[in-house]
Amino acid sequence: MIHPIPPGTRDVLPDEMRELRAIGVRMREVFAGAGYGEVHTPSLEYEDVLRWGEERAAGARYRTFDEHGAVLALRSDMTIPIARLVATRFRDPTEPLRLFYEGRAWRVVGDATGQQREFLQSGIELIGVLGADAEAEVIALAVEALAAAGLARHRVGLGDGALYRTLLAALEVPLDRHRDLLACLSRRDLAGLAGRVTDLDLAPDARELLIRLPELRGGPEVLDRVDGPAARGALEGLRTLYGALERRGVSDRVILDLGLVRELGYYTGAVYEVYDPAVGFALGGGGRYDELIGRFGDGRPACGLTLDVQRVHIAQAAEERLR
Amino acid sequence: MIHPIPPGTRDVLPDEMRELRAIGVRMREVFAGAGYGEVHTPSLEYEDVLRWGEERAAGARYRTFDEHGAVLALRSDMTIPIARLVATRFRDPTEPLRLFYEGRAWRVVGDATGQQREFLQSGIELIGVLGADAEAEVIALAVEALAAAGLARHRVGLGDGALYRTLLAALEVPLDRHRDLLACLSRRDLAGLAGRVTDLDLAPDARELLIRLPELRGGPEVLDRVDGPAARGALEGLRTLYGALERRGVSDRVILDLGLVRELGYYTGAVYEVYDPAVGFALGGGGRYDELIGRFGDGRPACGLTLDVQRVHIAQAAEERLR
Repeated sequence: MIHPIPPGTRDVLPDEMRELRAIGVRMREVFAGAGYGEVHTPSLEYEDVLRWGEERAAGARYRTFDEHGAVLALRSDMTIPIARLVATRFRDPTEPLRLFYEGRAWRVVGDATGQQREFLQSGIELIGVLGADAEAEVIALAVEALAAAGLARHRVGLGDGALYRTLLAALEVPLDRHRDLLACLSRRDLAGLAGRVTDLDLAPDARELLIRLPELRGGPEVLDRVDGPAARGALEGLRTLYGALERRGVSDRVILDLGLVRELGYYTGAVYEVYDPAVGFALGGGGRYDELIGRFGDGRPACGLTLDVQRVHIAQAAEERLR
Repeated sequence: MIHPIPPGTRDVLPDEMRELRAIGVRMREVFAGAGYGEVHTPSLEYEDVLRWGEERAAGARYRTFDEHGAVLALRSDMTIPIARLVATRFRDPTEPLRLFYEGRAWRVVGDATGQQREFLQSGIELIGVLGADAEAEVIALAVEALAAAGLARHRVGLGDGALYRTLLAALEVPLDRHRDLLACLSRRDLAGLAGRVTDLDLAPDARELLIRLPELRGGPEVLDRVDGPAARGALEGLRTLYGALERRGVSDRVILDLGLVRELGYYTGAVYEVYDPAVGFALGGGGRYDELIGRFGDGRPACGLTLDVQRVHIAQAAEERLR
């Protein structure tokens, strides 16, 4: 008899479970040591409430019904429920909050192999603080947590989630083309992006900017390779953040990546993704989301970063084999 | 703006979360120290597979669909998924297995207030070992885990899940009345039970046995207050288990309770429930389930016990206030 479990879910046996627990404990110790407090939210929430956080994410959620026929959904990320929690339970919008979590989230998967249906996420949210130093704190803490988990060569890709959208608007690319272009960018299909940009009715230098920008990755020098009034705000923000990361001694971990966009739509400024050279997938990511909490109550600025504990474990095991 | 979460679910803020984590860690340390290894199973499984574990529990589960239209369900307990895991991943049925878990489960709730929709369960399963000493090991370990979590006055109610059913059959009570009578017993409605038994067409001493038996609670002397061939097997089993608990030095924690039945239908022998005098609800329970794993593969005997971490925390806080 074979009793399959749904693809994208896993049974974990004791040897691996011990290692996952150890990674979780070490990361939580780093977060707690930096003054972050752990919170928990329900796995099942009213779908109507979660939708306020992001309409587009609704399709990624598993839905079921409560005893009165109301639609409940399994959370597909942790940041939206925590934004709801903050607006509801922490009433003073001027008080900075440092929160962390370790919990599961679920996403509807397609037929592509290797997609995870159930994730274990560990992450931090820094709420009520504007400015690059908040983002630098979050990035530096994630770098430290991953070192505590046993990684040595992890890197953070850093971009601006609004930069490409701003450029598209400034160059008057028709609105109905934006989603398709951003989707190419978000799945790193730069060839597909170049093809679509070439078809646009644009001046040659505008086309070149849209094709070249996502290829700009590296140290702070990449910030000098772009110009134009539309890009200036984002570039200035990234320059300031890079300076704050230098002061925290983690800028050698950071790769500027001007084509970085994150799948979720609530990011309003800097976005980041975490990698390890031992594995071919992102270990997590995050960014600034200054408008999300305001959808649930008094607005406050915020930024955060989440790590996939299972993927961190795979990277840690791969690093260990390389040593 | 108010953003409700579904009744029976909770947001947990940092102070409480620290205490819940501490309880979880201490209980897991006790389990691991006794040679138990932690396992994890997916929250979402195929409903068809879970049904093999218990048909009746299907109504308690939240259901959703996967991308192919197959029905997925959120697990409503941890023992059925672990039985599936054991049958699938541990192929040698003669090897004793000591497993533990800490994870969430979900149940459909009615309109009654106070029912939990989402639970955090921490528990143990001792698989492949027949006999009272296995049950005594599980009970003693749970008693120790609760002491490590900060409880001091916790007690274990001990009964036989098959005893009352066996008596009903031996006294030739019509089969269509069993479910109603057992439901009364399971919700401790002894007045309702007495009324229904009085209506049965039975000899006076049979009626008295069915009414009196569930009232028998206390030390080993209660085992001498019942007789009859139908009860003999269960009584002998409880006597042997009580002896094993005495040898482990935990019999002073145990209250024999001949009316104890557990809601889940897979128990085949001894059943137990854990209480603390500071709170008015069970903290957990378990029993022997020798037929469950066989529904998923090679059969093997097993017993286990689960604790509700949230309830353990409430009891621990109540105990602290009493000190």
